[in-house]
Amino acid sequence: MNDPDRTILRRDELRPFRLEARALHLLDQRALPAAETWLVLDDVEGVARAIETLAVRGAPAIGGAAALGTALVARTTTTRDADALRATLRAATARLRTTRPTAVNLFYALDRMERAIDAAAGADAAALRAAVVDEAERIVHEDEAACAAMGAAGASLLQDGDVVLTICHTGALATCGQGTALGAVKSARRAGKRVSVVALETRPLLQGARLTAWECLREGIPVTLITDGMAAAAFQRRGITRAFAGADRVAANGDAANKIGTYGVAVLARHHGVPFTIVAPTTTIDARTPDGAAIVVEERHADEIRRPQGTAFAPLDVPAWNPAFDVTPAALIDALATERGVLRAPYGDAIARALR
Amino acid sequence: MNDPDRTILRRDELRPFRLEARALHLLDQRALPAAETWLVLDDVEGVARAIETLAVRGAPAIGGAAALGTALVARTTTTRDADALRATLRAATARLRTTRPTAVNLFYALDRMERAIDAAAGADAAALRAAVVDEAERIVHEDEAACAAMGAAGASLLQDGDVVLTICHTGALATCGQGTALGAVKSARRAGKRVSVVALETRPLLQGARLTAWECLREGIPVTLITDGMAAAAFQRRGITRAFAGADRVAANGDAANKIGTYGVAVLARHHGVPFTIVAPTTTIDARTPDGAAIVVEERHADEIRRPQGTAFAPLDVPAWNPAFDVTPAALIDALATERGVLRAPYGDAIARALR
Repeated sequence: MNDPDRTILRRDELRPFRLEARALHLLDQRALPAAETWLVLDDVEGVARAIETLAVRGAPAIGGAAALGTALVARTTTTRDADALRATLRAATARLRTTRPTAVNLFYALDRMERAIDAAAGADAAALRAAVVDEAERIVHEDEAACAAMGAAGASLLQDGDVVLTICHTGALATCGQGTALGAVKSARRAGKRVSVVALETRPLLQGARLTAWECLREGIPVTLITDGMAAAAFQRRGITRAFAGADRVAANGDAANKIGTYGVAVLARHHGVPFTIVAPTTTIDARTPDGAAIVVEERHADEIRRPQGTAFAPLDVPAWNPAFDVTPAALIDALATERGVLRAPYGDAIARALR
Repeated sequence: MNDPDRTILRRDELRPFRLEARALHLLDQRALPAAETWLVLDDVEGVARAIETLAVRGAPAIGGAAALGTALVARTTTTRDADALRATLRAATARLRTTRPTAVNLFYALDRMERAIDAAAGADAAALRAAVVDEAERIVHEDEAACAAMGAAGASLLQDGDVVLTICHTGALATCGQGTALGAVKSARRAGKRVSVVALETRPLLQGARLTAWECLREGIPVTLITDGMAAAAFQRRGITRAFAGADRVAANGDAANKIGTYGVAVLARHHGVPFTIVAPTTTIDARTPDGAAIVVEERHADEIRRPQGTAFAPLDVPAWNPAFDVTPAALIDALATERGVLRAPYGDAIARALR
């Protein structure tokens, strides 16, 4: 039997968190790029708040944090009463379910954790604890392997010399592995292709400026930062040859919800004859959502627009609309690179086959 | 003969500057919306720096500031030697020419000021002084009247209930009158049409968040602020029925240079079947520029992207590309509203007729 207190996801390369014996160590992505601050979270409320406040973000990373947060509760709940432990664990997954409404990976991970909890019915507390920790480890390791596989799929679409426009952050910090869209750039570069990145800053929360720029510098990937409104000019004048984005949820017909601004990038890519690719694991596909119209889009506080990082950008009483995501119709998506290969239109059929 | 020390452009409604006897009083647009600070500029270097540092911006306002700055030099140069005064005035216009490379109105205004200086050859210093002040006043009053006329033209394209997407700031502060694109919204609302505005914040310098939002609140125009990346989602979900932009330079074929992001708005408008309109005075049209490819686009410092208002948004050493303008091809422009009426494609012919 594995050591139930073993560290999970300790790596030389960048990862967004690791589970130690009694705490989830989580890189506070809100503090980047100014500081590399690791939060030490010792209860489920801390993990839930970290997800809610975007200390950790990116759909696969949110799923991993929720899984490891549940494992943390298993480790730190010292009762020998299996029923009491089970009730505590179910309360933890219920709390974690309330953190973010859009990222399907969160619910995928919590569904698996709850099945693991329930499957251990009749087991003693130690066995239940071990089952929960094992399942959390499987979830994060599977995502890490999926990143490697979808990176290979995405890299197969990239050629030497490509200039890739990216939005938001889709690197290691967004997943349990090397990343999604930015991970594909890493795979291509490891294969010797000279691929560079033009990163949209991605207002209001600036994941592109804060995280993608930071991670590219750290990993030695050539990067140029631009504001979101410069995307069209970049297609016109900076020789963009590919647009790569991640996804927070992909519907059964291929419509994809992702960071606000992605839909505009897809329209601009089509206008300029540049392929637009989504790189996302199949866990991001929600077969129960028929199309984009059924995707609930989170709307966040207007102050993220009016006063980012406390700096007054606008009159503090001006109405602002702050949707966190938009939905790109499948018709604008040239390819969907997953850990099970590159899917192409018609996506309904391709997705059904990939999920089989 | 008019009082040579008379105040020029004193109005009840908002204007970006007024010329007093010995100083140009200029609203510091960099301090908005937090503070309404008026700079008191008493020499040409102060006026030139105000233009260079964007304390005053917007193509027609830049032209007006340069004209009034030249008049200020006429008033404050006390010599009775007409040749010495003429040399000082020519040095002033030469300095003002170096401030911004793209706004044609700047050169239009300075050309007129130089012709007025040269036309007074043989006149004494007092007559030269009066001629220069008179010409500056004509320039700003003509622009004010042009704003009213192009507002009427633009308003003719607006219907009750329209929701107008705008970029940058195109209100009173950008001109010597009520504004260009936002001025058309004001004209429509004065005519009883309930027109509302969705304003793009317009990174990196945030003219939409700082100035358009502020001016709309001040003038009672319903406004919703969004980030630049939300434009596509706004077309999809906020019922945008019109996109209105100003222009910094319009080429002879109708290609239009305007604030970075405008080209993307035009592409998105076309994709969604929404008309895209430029509202600009004919002084913005440069008949000597055949098309957009001939327009020089100013590139500004990367720190405007990396650390707006001193706040670190990105790693301070990440490369950034910061073009101030982009060029919208005439094919994406449904109408060009000017003080001489609404021009339509083919723009080459329409512009030639309008400039006749």
